[in-house]
Amino acid sequence: MEKVKVLIWGFGAMGSGMASMLLKKEGVEIVGICDAHPDRVGKNFKDVLNVTSNHPNVVINKDIDEVIAGAKADVALLATDSFTKNAYDKIVKLLEKKINVVSTAEEMAYPYVNEPELAKKMDEIAKANGVSVLGTGINPGLIMDLLAVCLTGCMEEVDHVTCRRVNSLSPFGPAVMEEQGVGMELDTFNELNAKGELAGHVGFRESVGMMAAALGFKVDQFEQQMKPIVTDVDRKSPYGFAAAGNLAGVNMTAQGYENGVEKFDMQHPQQIEPQLGGVDTGDYIVIKGTPEVNMAITPEVDGGIGTIAMCVNMIPHVINSDAGLKTMIDLPVPRAIMGDMRELIK
Amino acid sequence: MEKVKVLIWGFGAMGSGMASMLLKKEGVEIVGICDAHPDRVGKNFKDVLNVTSNHPNVVINKDIDEVIAGAKADVALLATDSFTKNAYDKIVKLLEKKINVVSTAEEMAYPYVNEPELAKKMDEIAKANGVSVLGTGINPGLIMDLLAVCLTGCMEEVDHVTCRRVNSLSPFGPAVMEEQGVGMELDTFNELNAKGELAGHVGFRESVGMMAAALGFKVDQFEQQMKPIVTDVDRKSPYGFAAAGNLAGVNMTAQGYENGVEKFDMQHPQQIEPQLGGVDTGDYIVIKGTPEVNMAITPEVDGGIGTIAMCVNMIPHVINSDAGLKTMIDLPVPRAIMGDMRELIK
Repeated sequence: MEKVKVLIWGFGAMGSGMASMLLKKEGVEIVGICDAHPDRVGKNFKDVLNVTSNHPNVVINKDIDEVIAGAKADVALLATDSFTKNAYDKIVKLLEKKINVVSTAEEMAYPYVNEPELAKKMDEIAKANGVSVLGTGINPGLIMDLLAVCLTGCMEEVDHVTCRRVNSLSPFGPAVMEEQGVGMELDTFNELNAKGELAGHVGFRESVGMMAAALGFKVDQFEQQMKPIVTDVDRKSPYGFAAAGNLAGVNMTAQGYENGVEKFDMQHPQQIEPQLGGVDTGDYIVIKGTPEVNMAITPEVDGGIGTIAMCVNMIPHVINSDAGLKTMIDLPVPRAIMGDMRELIK
Repeated sequence: MEKVKVLIWGFGAMGSGMASMLLKKEGVEIVGICDAHPDRVGKNFKDVLNVTSNHPNVVINKDIDEVIAGAKADVALLATDSFTKNAYDKIVKLLEKKINVVSTAEEMAYPYVNEPELAKKMDEIAKANGVSVLGTGINPGLIMDLLAVCLTGCMEEVDHVTCRRVNSLSPFGPAVMEEQGVGMELDTFNELNAKGELAGHVGFRESVGMMAAALGFKVDQFEQQMKPIVTDVDRKSPYGFAAAGNLAGVNMTAQGYENGVEKFDMQHPQQIEPQLGGVDTGDYIVIKGTPEVNMAITPEVDGGIGTIAMCVNMIPHVINSDAGLKTMIDLPVPRAIMGDMRELIK
């Protein structure tokens, strides 16, 4: 039986991490890589990863049409965007070539809420081509949505869901430092935040939308806030520095309401060196109802590895799925792949 | 659109609990109930439950053929047995009438391990009749298997899984007190245990089998132990009493190995009034690998409500499933049903 053939589009931290993970897995092969970064174009991906492997060489190519034509891929891992509207044309191109798609775009985790028309089109195009498309990652995708949904499986009634992810930004690079306001002066933060010019976490609307759809709540009101996390002491991480009085990160919060009653409470404070603020990291889900469920994962699941793993681990589910746009609540539970990936393909 | 039509076979603690839960849900109707207990036969189920409801009356009937003929059910909740071989004829009867089945039998959570031939037959019969059959519950079914599988979704590599469920037996009745050795003298326990005459927890082999299949481990060795939990002080629960020096319960443990290496470690100490032994209850999953995941649910998820909820909540997934024998790793994640059940049927 032929190996599962994977195309990777976008070879930054996520795409290259997926390639590294795939090299350790059996029954799967990377058949094409598209990336436009001048440091990577034209290079063998194993040299970019700085690994030794008997995996066939794949030269990184910036022309996606050439990559697709040469690859005959079963599935593409698309790690280029956060927003559906930016990923849309790429997804359509892949679907029209009858290639299943796993996207890291946070909005793609539940595109029905922010891009319902694009979601409808992607579903139609996927069905017309007999393939499927899924957005996933650690968050949105698992920790602040699917995992909570799974835990409600043992409940007769759900009154309220709190998802709280307290994580460290210390492992992340310069781009994340900037997006999350690390080191920023409070006045600057207030100015940018008032103008809506700070990204912060993308995905609350999607997580709430996914959970509401799964449980059958009609969320008719959604609110989101971003507040500064000001440090009392100097904090330093490999790529970030926050002087005392400045931002160590931001605290994103959101709420989803049904008929004026809060059903979902999302809390996601992210900062460098949280221990210097007396903060213990972790993922917490508290579900009020019958029975109540009070879950903690300590420390939090690593976001970078987690997203890479979720995308790779969902490959068999996406290939096996009936055609169309899928979200995590449509497919079997995610799982690590410790055997031959071919054995998981129906 | 017609309501989802549910038949209940077995109206003990589980079956009657599912009926109570269904009465609170929209878009679903109980259309037949089979139970042979003389206290219940011939009675309207609402009188047995002692509830007031505008749900149509259903008289409990001990003749399953009459119940099936009068019901036109979409799905049956079968809450009669723990072992596949005892549930088998009942399951086949339902499948042959083209009724989907959700079974509480612990072995049915993953019948391939203990009853592979019966599993094969059920799969064939279900497919021949265009319906599906699933075994589920809180454990096996979620807490010591599916939830661990779900958490591995964010992992690149899994080395070892520990599932530990520390729960109180205090809410349970006389049958459970006897099965779990509550109040027993140590000599009696040792004698019965040596003869294999104490049931303890049923489901470790199924949970390990399910997790191994999901992750791709080839478990070639399985071991299980039962040890007494001797109390230092007198303990009293509504249906149990353990004098100091006697058993407050039993500690069931199991291990699954691949090529001599332990991959799964199952720990399930059950006792009355655990706080009197200084024991905090909870559900714990610790997964070694990349990244590590360390999860705790405290206190533990209530086992009775949990099993009732899992069975009811899986009804839409079982109706929507393609035909055949299914386990929890084949279907979308379980979830509470807070809206109209009809909206979940494809």
